[in-house]
Amino acid sequence: APAEPPTSSSSTTLANDHHTLGKRLNLFSVTPYSAGSPLLHADGSHLFLKLQDLLRAQHQAFGFREVISPTIYKQSLWEKSGHWQNYGDDMFEVVGRGARGTTEGKDISDNEKWGLKPMNCPGHCLLFATEARSYRDLPVRFADFSPLHRNEISGALSGLTRVRRFHQDDGHIFCRQDQVKDEIASTLKMVNLVYSAFELKPHKLLLSTRPEDNFIGTENEWAEAELQLQTALDESNLNWSPNPGDGAFYGPKIDIILRDNHGKEHQTATIQLDFQLPQRFELVYQDQTRSTQTPILIHRAVLGSIERFMALLIEHYHGKWPFWLNPHQVSILTLNQSDTVLAHANKIASTLSGRPASGITKLQSLRQSDFTINIDSTSETQGKKLVHARNQGYGILCSVGRKEVERGDVTVDFWCAGEGTRLERVEAVIERFLDGATKTQ
Amino acid sequence: APAEPPTSSSSTTLANDHHTLGKRLNLFSVTPYSAGSPLLHADGSHLFLKLQDLLRAQHQAFGFREVISPTIYKQSLWEKSGHWQNYGDDMFEVVGRGARGTTEGKDISDNEKWGLKPMNCPGHCLLFATEARSYRDLPVRFADFSPLHRNEISGALSGLTRVRRFHQDDGHIFCRQDQVKDEIASTLKMVNLVYSAFELKPHKLLLSTRPEDNFIGTENEWAEAELQLQTALDESNLNWSPNPGDGAFYGPKIDIILRDNHGKEHQTATIQLDFQLPQRFELVYQDQTRSTQTPILIHRAVLGSIERFMALLIEHYHGKWPFWLNPHQVSILTLNQSDTVLAHANKIASTLSGRPASGITKLQSLRQSDFTINIDSTSETQGKKLVHARNQGYGILCSVGRKEVERGDVTVDFWCAGEGTRLERVEAVIERFLDGATKTQ
Ligand SMILES: [Zn+2]
Ligand SMILES: [Zn+2]
Repeated sequence: APAEPPTSSSSTTLANDHHTLGKRLNLFSVTPYSAGSPLLHADGSHLFLKLQDLLRAQHQAFGFREVISPTIYKQSLWEKSGHWQNYGDDMFEVVGRGARGTTEGKDISDNEKWGLKPMNCPGHCLLFATEARSYRDLPVRFADFSPLHRNEISGALSGLTRVRRFHQDDGHIFCRQDQVKDEIASTLKMVNLVYSAFELKPHKLLLSTRPEDNFIGTENEWAEAELQLQTALDESNLNWSPNPGDGAFYGPKIDIILRDNHGKEHQTATIQLDFQLPQRFELVYQDQTRSTQTPILIHRAVLGSIERFMALLIEHYHGKWPFWLNPHQVSILTLNQSDTVLAHANKIASTLSGRPASGITKLQSLRQSDFTINIDSTSETQGKKLVHARNQGYGILCSVGRKEVERGDVTVDFWCAGEGTRLERVEAVIERFLDGATKTQ
Repeated sequence: APAEPPTSSSSTTLANDHHTLGKRLNLFSVTPYSAGSPLLHADGSHLFLKLQDLLRAQHQAFGFREVISPTIYKQSLWEKSGHWQNYGDDMFEVVGRGARGTTEGKDISDNEKWGLKPMNCPGHCLLFATEARSYRDLPVRFADFSPLHRNEISGALSGLTRVRRFHQDDGHIFCRQDQVKDEIASTLKMVNLVYSAFELKPHKLLLSTRPEDNFIGTENEWAEAELQLQTALDESNLNWSPNPGDGAFYGPKIDIILRDNHGKEHQTATIQLDFQLPQRFELVYQDQTRSTQTPILIHRAVLGSIERFMALLIEHYHGKWPFWLNPHQVSILTLNQSDTVLAHANKIASTLSGRPASGITKLQSLRQSDFTINIDSTSETQGKKLVHARNQGYGILCSVGRKEVERGDVTVDFWCAGEGTRLERVEAVIERFLDGATKTQ
């Protein structure tokens, strides 16, 4: 049997709201040409990429290294991992239409089919095995944002929540038995920090322990691992309860349940111990005595399915994005269409964006300000421009007219959600918004 | 016939060198479980992600918006685009192993197969069609880094250069006829800037024009488009020559040829005009007179296949990465193992990385310094530590001993490739390296 991944289906059902909001906010659409694989529009992709950035910043701090692993693997691999036998009906199968290989490697049949990956674990086991590992090298932690595919029947498909193609903020930790507690504690801390970016927090955690029978490993190994999980949970100061006997046969797990603004519960993060997959892949490390040991594998995802988490956030924020996530950050509204006012508006946009007003002449830095900025220089009234910009969800509105041009420096009157209008220097605006990953104002 | 994408095979062959170097530098490996889909190790992924960041920074400046599009599409889509008929043998076919849909949308057969995408263009056409577009909305520019699959026979596979799975820095521009020149000029500028990050520049460009017969569109349309391409090329000050009659039947193209350090030529970037695909997808925009017009599609990639470009860079730099690309940026070598020296080494690492020395207690920012830092506190001699660090390719080496602790502030002696040893404050080091995308020192 395969290592089950963090689930991508929710324990409660999301209201259909995210479809309507997703359409109104121009975030995504669905197509019959690829039912279950949402098309993320530019603004939807913006949200996706900001979430990915947020996770990447935490990955670095928590010692995860990102890897890029294949999308298709031969049937032999899925048989080794157990997915072909036990998870096969949920997988897509891949065959070459034209060219066929003649030699793909010993033991692997030439005309073997591939499976389109439903999860990253087997690929990460291959990556672990590319080097000899000693006890000092552990834990080894891999992160991966690959697209994953699972074959849901089309009747069940729904927006961003029930899909055939999705991405996880997937992570696998290969560690020694004595490292389990610290890794779990660290993962719980990361979950807590990441959720705090959305003013969310884990509502409750469930620890599923060893089933009565049909489990792999010894009772001692389970008892030892469960004790470490309990200790980490106790020390986390989070609200947890045991779920005795409900663990998978290959290891105990922790499910993390969120409660959103509307009181709805969502199962997002999962932490799953796995005594089996490292054995199936014959993964080893060398201990202090130079004998070989099998590492423990921890599967974990913080957001879970990023698409599903986006659906949750779409409903959570209802289009009122915190500044750092907002695909529409700043709109500059010109009070007239004179050349000097337009030039001043361009100057402000240039200062905020970090890009020259008059065309790109040098390589853009990876680190400069990258606010999303719009200039509305149409001939509409200021009132109409304001309404339009607010409808589009702009977080900061700057009015630019004769007064601002006369003042000569780059200073703007700006209106900021929750703060009203005030005068502030553009440099100060940049400071406030640039610093800190997730300040909402 | 389909729109051909920028080619992923080189006009000249790379030496096999990148295999050896890739292994020595621990960048990637291949597996018989997925021949042709390289496994990028953590350091290889680091390079990949830095290249992606570099392109993303330029995308923002040049008005490209990133989208996230499906991996599999029904046969109907590939028939519409023409790929199923004309490109089919190079594609992989996908079928669900278990659950089958009952309704996938009108006109699209229930049990239809999917094709695993070899290119992003059809998906971007679907995205263009999700909104009504006016002449004022054009150009619409999409960028996409999706994994792509093409079925090469296994005998032809080789490292990162001849693969079945790869990623492009893919872009599609939907524009009016009168915008072609500016878009081409802007694309050439971007190519030039991006290559300059590697101290490379386009060696020559080839303009392939209308074939004698069997072309779509009118002679006038071709003449108009070719004139704009020529003007953009002339104004670019790049070395170009015509390749008369060698364009595809659906549009003229520009091939860009690089010459590396070793004098080898590589075809990387391509700019391909396409009069056909927008017609096949019935894409339209509304012009000034409110009548509908068909946009012109420009396919373009700057790096081309990112994996193939990595192979080029691996040979180009031979492991001596510029600082911004280097997966091993800073190594701090302790002169002894006293607590105060170790604490000071941790303090320097913390200042450089922007992370607290004593555990992560708050959300990590998306924008803080993210140098890759190692502390070598083993009991080896300083000489051995230096040799080891240089072998691993570290760009900056800091020695930390009693002297540095006594000085009390965070100041380091550092050795920098090409500059020798000198004393510098850590803050100054950060300033020098943080600023600018691609400073090599
Ligand atoms: Zn897993
Ligand atoms: Zn294309």
